[in-house]
Amino acid sequence: MSGEETPTQQQQPEQEKQPDEPPPSAPEAPQESGASPAAAAEEEKPLPCRALVLTGYGGYDKIKLQVKTLSPPQLKPGEVLLRVKACGLNFAELLGKQGLYELLPAPPVTLGMEGCGVIEACGEDVKDRKVGDRVIALDRSGMWQEVVVVPANRTFPMPEEMSFEEGAALPINYLTAYMMLFEMANLRPGKSVLIHMAAGGVGIAVTQLCKTVPDVTVFGTASASKHETISQGGVTHPIDYRTKDYVEEIRKISPKGVNIVLDPLGGSDTQKGFNLLKPLGQLIVFGAANCVTGQKKNLLAMAKTWYNQLSLSTMKLMQANKAVCGFHLGYIQDEELFGSSMMKLLELYKQGKIKPRIDSCYHFEEVAEAMKRMHERQNIGKVILLPEAKKEEEKPKSNPEPVENVEKNEDAPAQQKEEVTEEVKAEEN
Amino acid sequence: MSGEETPTQQQQPEQEKQPDEPPPSAPEAPQESGASPAAAAEEEKPLPCRALVLTGYGGYDKIKLQVKTLSPPQLKPGEVLLRVKACGLNFAELLGKQGLYELLPAPPVTLGMEGCGVIEACGEDVKDRKVGDRVIALDRSGMWQEVVVVPANRTFPMPEEMSFEEGAALPINYLTAYMMLFEMANLRPGKSVLIHMAAGGVGIAVTQLCKTVPDVTVFGTASASKHETISQGGVTHPIDYRTKDYVEEIRKISPKGVNIVLDPLGGSDTQKGFNLLKPLGQLIVFGAANCVTGQKKNLLAMAKTWYNQLSLSTMKLMQANKAVCGFHLGYIQDEELFGSSMMKLLELYKQGKIKPRIDSCYHFEEVAEAMKRMHERQNIGKVILLPEAKKEEEKPKSNPEPVENVEKNEDAPAQQKEEVTEEVKAEEN
Repeated sequence: MSGEETPTQQQQPEQEKQPDEPPPSAPEAPQESGASPAAAAEEEKPLPCRALVLTGYGGYDKIKLQVKTLSPPQLKPGEVLLRVKACGLNFAELLGKQGLYELLPAPPVTLGMEGCGVIEACGEDVKDRKVGDRVIALDRSGMWQEVVVVPANRTFPMPEEMSFEEGAALPINYLTAYMMLFEMANLRPGKSVLIHMAAGGVGIAVTQLCKTVPDVTVFGTASASKHETISQGGVTHPIDYRTKDYVEEIRKISPKGVNIVLDPLGGSDTQKGFNLLKPLGQLIVFGAANCVTGQKKNLLAMAKTWYNQLSLSTMKLMQANKAVCGFHLGYIQDEELFGSSMMKLLELYKQGKIKPRIDSCYHFEEVAEAMKRMHERQNIGKVILLPEAKKEEEKPKSNPEPVENVEKNEDAPAQQKEEVTEEVKAEEN
Repeated sequence: MSGEETPTQQQQPEQEKQPDEPPPSAPEAPQESGASPAAAAEEEKPLPCRALVLTGYGGYDKIKLQVKTLSPPQLKPGEVLLRVKACGLNFAELLGKQGLYELLPAPPVTLGMEGCGVIEACGEDVKDRKVGDRVIALDRSGMWQEVVVVPANRTFPMPEEMSFEEGAALPINYLTAYMMLFEMANLRPGKSVLIHMAAGGVGIAVTQLCKTVPDVTVFGTASASKHETISQGGVTHPIDYRTKDYVEEIRKISPKGVNIVLDPLGGSDTQKGFNLLKPLGQLIVFGAANCVTGQKKNLLAMAKTWYNQLSLSTMKLMQANKAVCGFHLGYIQDEELFGSSMMKLLELYKQGKIKPRIDSCYHFEEVAEAMKRMHERQNIGKVILLPEAKKEEEKPKSNPEPVENVEKNEDAPAQQKEEVTEEVKAEEN
């Protein structure tokens, strides 16, 4: 299904939705706009907003950089307005671009699930955040834009020493790693862990968190060129999955197998992971990267991945004394769990026990290159997107494509005319 | 399949097997029988041995009490000879009697997976056990007899203050509970646990172990008459599964569900347990009690249980953020895991934090009554079997059935003629 013909009403970015439904408790009078006097001032000025919008499923050309001039949003109680300084790129966006990430609303939709920046305004009832706070923010989508409205309880104050890039790199990867290792599995001293794509964002987070527990052995698959880096990061046994059978390599080192297998691949690798488990071991499937091959949806790869997807009866599990778990951060809605886990992670950061590794930073204009780098598994650590416009001399040499018109939301009378000034160059291969 | 026609060679009790294969390193000369000088003395005397033997699949009449006079076994290196003082009855023997426990060798086979008693002789290489030691012992079968040969590493010294009944009640139930809660699941302060058959042996062990962790909520199903006892034992919310829908009852108290569900039932209860899990929760299936209805194999109950057996793809698990685990102590062969878990349990016993609750003790003659009590879920805690002969005045009034002949093992020339002096009364209903 292509979403390009979908009406835009329900896929407008957050800012554009705000004027549709002015909350009854938050009229325009400045004295009532709550926690922050600055919020009133902000409301006077129109907000320019660069956003990365998925306009349909397919290659990189489906992601457009749209620069709009929006009327200032009216915040609902409990919301904050954030000026985004850096965003994280995740595998979910690679899947989403191909129409394979079901939690993403249909296009057109602004992408992005994590970012960080500075609070510019607070809605009513927001007591524990204030204008000027540097915060990390999480949402299902819409984070890849210059200004964004998010619920205050999905923002987390950044430690002083943390850079915006680090802040944007932390939430999705480290929450995933933390919840898998310590909430779902039972990582304790002396145990062993296998992590695939050990040089990726989650891989590095898993490795660092494993190092917070004494005497944990980490097996990590990655291409040979990354081995030195991941070894230094804490991977006990790096394995080159491109030239060697990782199952055999692990069995050579640990004939009984491993205690915890973290599987972002799906398909036949899930079965291999299950077989590698020691008794009482846990396999946690948290992705289906094997689905993604080329730039567009690959039906053969999907069919193969789904066909090979592990399905087990409880009788089989009893005989094996094994656990099969599924993890997907996007489906977790327990705010308390998010809050307590983020608190622990920020504490570990302050103690110097974890530190996001930034692979590279790309301006919004370069989103295709950023995604390509991740897609081709060239990154070691996190790929970051920066909303700030690239300086003229840094810009890619190729000519920008023709300007695209964006549908105007007719229900939003206060909204300024949107103008697309630039869009990303398609780099599909 | 009925095993009644199966040749006896491979189903002989442990003692009868010994003479078949004298270990090359343990000749008969007393000076070479190793760790214990008493071993030599023991070898001189014939050993009378009362044993409970499953002679075929079906009702209680298939379990015969056979009293044999055996030649003393020659211990292999690493083995000990144990005079059994008390044995534990487990659900596995109810399943085994019906031919539903695949780890049990085909009949005729001496039943029993746990017991405790006093060491009467030690084989070569046994350094850390000596004659006179009071030990708990575990084996796949064969523990329901007066004297038994077991590997020394499957024996565990009993604390002084522990009775033989407690010792026999501990291993299977508490190892099951301990490994499920602390090795497979991740029980921590503030979590909640659902245990079915909360008044049974595993149920009480689970409850006591949950109490060793602060602020754990225990939901336990049991019939109403047992609620007072299990409440006193630590079940926070006893639920009468016979008159109420336990799912509804739990949702009333905890709308979000529970963190850990321990399921010994199988069938449709497994699906209910899965649905009751909170995100990141763990369902551990460790039995299929729903298979067992009457005294004999019930094909309809089995088919229903199997048909309703949960089978999930990893995709479904990811969307649910849940874990499905199987646990079966019988399939675990990791001696180190047994050893370390038993050490921890014995330490908890010494600290007064766990204490097996003995429901009732039956002499071997009364095995049918003992099994019936468990089958009908009348017990609160562990049902114990005592090898010691019941005193004449205590004996059941009904006449014993005719004496049954037991096959003689022709490969065992040193073996004394076996004589069956008594057998259990069938109490099938």
